[in-house]
Amino acid sequence: MHGVGTLQNAGPGELSFLASPRYRRYLAGTRAAAVIVSVADAAACPVPALVSDNPYACYARAAQILHPRVEVKAGVHPGAAINGSATIHKSARIDAFCSIEAGAEIGARVHLGPGCVIGPGVRIGAESRLVARVTVLARAQVGKRVLLHPGVVIGADGFGLAQSDSHWEKVPQIGSVQIGDDVEIGANTTIDRGAVDDTLIGRGVKIDNQVQIAHNVVIGEHTAIAGCVGVSGSTRIGSHCTIAGGAGLVGHIEIVDHVHITAMSLVTRSISSAGSYSTGTPLMETVQWRRNAVCFKQLRSLLRRVARLETDRQG
Amino acid sequence: MHGVGTLQNAGPGELSFLASPRYRRYLAGTRAAAVIVSVADAAACPVPALVSDNPYACYARAAQILHPRVEVKAGVHPGAAINGSATIHKSARIDAFCSIEAGAEIGARVHLGPGCVIGPGVRIGAESRLVARVTVLARAQVGKRVLLHPGVVIGADGFGLAQSDSHWEKVPQIGSVQIGDDVEIGANTTIDRGAVDDTLIGRGVKIDNQVQIAHNVVIGEHTAIAGCVGVSGSTRIGSHCTIAGGAGLVGHIEIVDHVHITAMSLVTRSISSAGSYSTGTPLMETVQWRRNAVCFKQLRSLLRRVARLETDRQG
Amino acid sequence: MHGVGTLQNAGPGELSFLASPRYRRYLAGTRAAAVIVSVADAAACPVPALVSDNPYACYARAAQILHPRVEVKAGVHPGAAINGSATIHKSARIDAFCSIEAGAEIGARVHLGPGCVIGPGVRIGAESRLVARVTVLARAQVGKRVLLHPGVVIGADGFGLAQSDSHWEKVPQIGSVQIGDDVEIGANTTIDRGAVDDTLIGRGVKIDNQVQIAHNVVIGEHTAIAGCVGVSGSTRIGSHCTIAGGAGLVGHIEIVDHVHITAMSLVTRSISSAGSYSTGTPLMETVQWRRNAVCFKQLRSLLRRVARLETDRQG
Repeated sequence: MHGVGTLQNAGPGELSFLASPRYRRYLAGTRAAAVIVSVADAAACPVPALVSDNPYACYARAAQILHPRVEVKAGVHPGAAINGSATIHKSARIDAFCSIEAGAEIGARVHLGPGCVIGPGVRIGAESRLVARVTVLARAQVGKRVLLHPGVVIGADGFGLAQSDSHWEKVPQIGSVQIGDDVEIGANTTIDRGAVDDTLIGRGVKIDNQVQIAHNVVIGEHTAIAGCVGVSGSTRIGSHCTIAGGAGLVGHIEIVDHVHITAMSLVTRSISSAGSYSTGTPLMETVQWRRNAVCFKQLRSLLRRVARLETDRQG
Repeated sequence: MHGVGTLQNAGPGELSFLASPRYRRYLAGTRAAAVIVSVADAAACPVPALVSDNPYACYARAAQILHPRVEVKAGVHPGAAINGSATIHKSARIDAFCSIEAGAEIGARVHLGPGCVIGPGVRIGAESRLVARVTVLARAQVGKRVLLHPGVVIGADGFGLAQSDSHWEKVPQIGSVQIGDDVEIGANTTIDRGAVDDTLIGRGVKIDNQVQIAHNVVIGEHTAIAGCVGVSGSTRIGSHCTIAGGAGLVGHIEIVDHVHITAMSLVTRSISSAGSYSTGTPLMETVQWRRNAVCFKQLRSLLRRVARLETDRQG
Repeated sequence: MHGVGTLQNAGPGELSFLASPRYRRYLAGTRAAAVIVSVADAAACPVPALVSDNPYACYARAAQILHPRVEVKAGVHPGAAINGSATIHKSARIDAFCSIEAGAEIGARVHLGPGCVIGPGVRIGAESRLVARVTVLARAQVGKRVLLHPGVVIGADGFGLAQSDSHWEKVPQIGSVQIGDDVEIGANTTIDRGAVDDTLIGRGVKIDNQVQIAHNVVIGEHTAIAGCVGVSGSTRIGSHCTIAGGAGLVGHIEIVDHVHITAMSLVTRSISSAGSYSTGTPLMETVQWRRNAVCFKQLRSLLRRVARLETDRQG
């Protein structure tokens, strides 16, 4: 076994998996060397079946073994700019065009890819990887084994404005960001520093691309947030939540553990019970949608008209 | 007094504030040295109260004094790449890996953090700060005291396409961007150059992270735009507007002054009266939401059925 | 004729165009040297009219001629970091602070602007331009004449997670990205590498700023995607589709050719017929919106109540 492949494309010597009924139709024709399946699919597997009660997680671990991360060589590229008071562990690797400022600490076996900016007083925990062009500011503390993808910005100023007569007064943003161990953050995602206290990202949190986390947000452990989500200031999200793509959460609310938010839903209030929550309307052809959507403006009067009809009938 | 803190966490020697009833419960227990409050909260303040009719703005100014911006030392890092025809004021600071192209002008006391790209003919006004990895192209003119956070891109091509038979013809984008004084733009926000005329961002405008401003948009003075908003091409937004997070505005419309758009609303038409505007449906548990959302498709027929019932009753 | 201008601002020696009835009011007062118009507008044109059956596409081509791309000089900036095993065509131009890793291939007349990161094994086709600070990883194959704007990230890990007891197991992302010829991708847009097979962006596709394309998405030729759109994993979009700004597509669905999605709509299912599709509610003043939106929760019961009234009437 030298690698992994999809049911459709795996060749001899490659391991595959079946974790969703959506792909069951490809099982019979697979040319994989073996397939990780649930017990229900084992009989139908035309090649050796590896039975698991969680085929996807089992596949994940197998793929980690078959495709191990390339070991990086320690060393500091001569084209990096490193302040004399920064501390770089001797096993770390710093690529070209990284800028590391005063008092920053880079832990053991950390890899900073090209073009990263590490601000004063920032600490990057052991075995973390900043893939390329990642910015970490505001004395942020980044845990161990954290993976930050290109374009991530951690510790930029939060959007703190006070209305004063006819203009906006900037509220100085002096808090920091704390990121737990084993966090992964996707490309071009932004996580702002706290206004006064810190923004907190719990251990094991996974955040996709293009997500915006505002100042003083708190995210509990092992919560997963898909692409294009926005979380407004001071909102607290529990542990083990899953927020689907494009959802939004207003500021200053609290979401308990084990909440799921469906795609592009807007959360306008605190949620105190675990479960799944949604907003929106169903997809329709635009011409039909337009005819129905315009009636949305008459919903309240419609309710009243129906109540009147009911009263009349009983009268 | 040596700094600021929240009501919950401020210690001796730290100034705090109470600007929202949401946090009133923390007032009694605060250990702050003093608290900025409105007159209504003064009596309940257990420590010296500084009474203001706008506690949040008053706090903002106090925090600016207690946490002044660190003075940066003038100078050009030897690891910057600067075209010989660019003009850098002698009081400016240019950090490592900045690229400044032909004819660019960098004003007095400007600070370009690491990795900024300043295109040909761009002008950056006095005392502006580009925190890190900011890109400014297209001969853009940036005002004084402008603050651009990491990952900002100003002056990329607008999305100008003409349909031609079965492909898209690129419409050359030759306009520029003008950004007024005292503007702040959040991390990874993008502002496109105009197609022919310029994209215009008024004085004192504040824009949060991950916002997209398309070509030839015009934004009036002191308008504030929260995270993840998208504004389509040639739309004009008035002064003193507030656009909440995740909202979208279609192209070629006009919004007057003093308009508020609520979170994740879609503005599909011009707005000619000041006020607050919204779209969307309320948050529900998904199982309840699904039952109701499917009925949205029958709204028009429902209206007709009710009208028929009303007619029958009168008949 | 030395340039182009809008009807309002074009001066002598500048070419203008009229492609939308919205701007017809400016035709009579134009001082342009000539105007590209449809036959219907020719008579009203006060200056020489160039009649076209597609004035906008005609203007696009004329503007391309009047504003040709500036020819760049070949050469590698001494401040670039280039791995010895990378291949750079002698006609290519590589600007400062570019990082080009092992085995990468940069084609003829390619221009990499400042601060680009080209990962191991990546190939950039002839005459492509990476404007500045573009990241391309994961052995991605980029076609000819491709235009990538600042902040673009191609080939970051997809959001592949398997739930395992109480944490998330990372699913190694080992696929790549293939980008066809003549593709344009806007500022800060992200396109993830495939989980196992590749993410595919067809020839002539145009993508605006701040768009998120997840792993294993397939986009057909000449489809155009406006700003802030999110496309979830493994979704397949046909050719010649147009997705308006802020729309979202859930994962694992298929959209046929020639589909249009309106702004900020959520596509929750496959679409098997060409046409236009929408979700959402109409824009209202917030106070009116709130009164009606709350009734959305009673839609199902309202339908039942009306059905009962109808039964009673017939009874």
